[in-house]
Amino acid sequence: MDALKNRILVDGQVFPGNILKVDSFLNHQIDVALLQEIAKEFYLLYGKDGVNKVLTIEASGIGIGCAVAGAFGCPLVFAKKSKTKNIAGAVFTSKVASFTHGNVSDIIVSQDFLKKEDRVLIIDDFLAKGNALVGLIELVSQAQAHLVGCGIVIEKGFQGGGDQLRAKGIRVESLAIVESMDASKGNVAFRS
Amino acid sequence: MDALKNRILVDGQVFPGNILKVDSFLNHQIDVALLQEIAKEFYLLYGKDGVNKVLTIEASGIGIGCAVAGAFGCPLVFAKKSKTKNIAGAVFTSKVASFTHGNVSDIIVSQDFLKKEDRVLIIDDFLAKGNALVGLIELVSQAQAHLVGCGIVIEKGFQGGGDQLRAKGIRVESLAIVESMDASKGNVAFRS
Repeated sequence: MDALKNRILVDGQVFPGNILKVDSFLNHQIDVALLQEIAKEFYLLYGKDGVNKVLTIEASGIGIGCAVAGAFGCPLVFAKKSKTKNIAGAVFTSKVASFTHGNVSDIIVSQDFLKKEDRVLIIDDFLAKGNALVGLIELVSQAQAHLVGCGIVIEKGFQGGGDQLRAKGIRVESLAIVESMDASKGNVAFRS
Repeated sequence: MDALKNRILVDGQVFPGNILKVDSFLNHQIDVALLQEIAKEFYLLYGKDGVNKVLTIEASGIGIGCAVAGAFGCPLVFAKKSKTKNIAGAVFTSKVASFTHGNVSDIIVSQDFLKKEDRVLIIDDFLAKGNALVGLIELVSQAQAHLVGCGIVIEKGFQGGGDQLRAKGIRVESLAIVESMDASKGNVAFRS
């Protein structure tokens, strides 16, 4: 998606430790108009696949997840990272190691909101080693729902998580795949 | 907002401890179509006030914040609850005690995304004692930005936070104000 790649080149910042900071438009300040364009792109990719539920994970997946659910005319469900007073009853649960936060979280979805008959599109803002996706796929599997595929805004291709999932036969569509980054020069190169 | 109040009456669940669970449509599973209607309502209330930035707090404010920012054609900024690897540089910061999670969080916004010239609408899904709003208002104040007002989806009027802020001259608009709840009967009564 050219508009997204251009935005990454103009406004993204590369930091040591393979960190690509896009918080001026994607995950701290959000350019909602760009989100709408991203959602349309996912609809072009998955619009004929009978998706009836979008699944993401808090916090930074929620904005893009809402936009995509709007494009598909279906609800968004977001997995929560810790058990709060407000989740009662039976849940599906798995674990996710966070690259950004440097910790491991339990993630949960109420069994009320993922059902056997659901056709699920998993959406997230970033894909690096794939930990969040693996955790979300596990939730879909526990629900015995059908996983249509995954839609990622920015994949760090050089960290391998996306290709590992593709090798297992899971459909993973990323709108921008970063092949390499250089913090010393601030360069970002995309997979063609 | 009648559609919202009706939805609360039909799908909301009341639990002991003044908990109103609306996670089938607002903060776990999200009815994106309802979110769009809610956003339109806030635009009716604040559309002539020159809002150029919507501010909310992760996680459950992000969905409604995105919808409202879309209605206003401006960016959303969401305050983060912990310092991650991906926030570098100067930040505004305050503290928020969470009714739902039973803890106190530092909340932060990068100084890049709240500026003196901004006219800010604060959006959140819930208002009870007002802790989150007070923390967000403090961030706006640190930025020396102009606070246009606050837009809340569901206010628990009996917990007093909204009225305390109104008494200080802050404009707080809530689309549904719950005046009382009864967990034993499952009743919810709205302020008229």
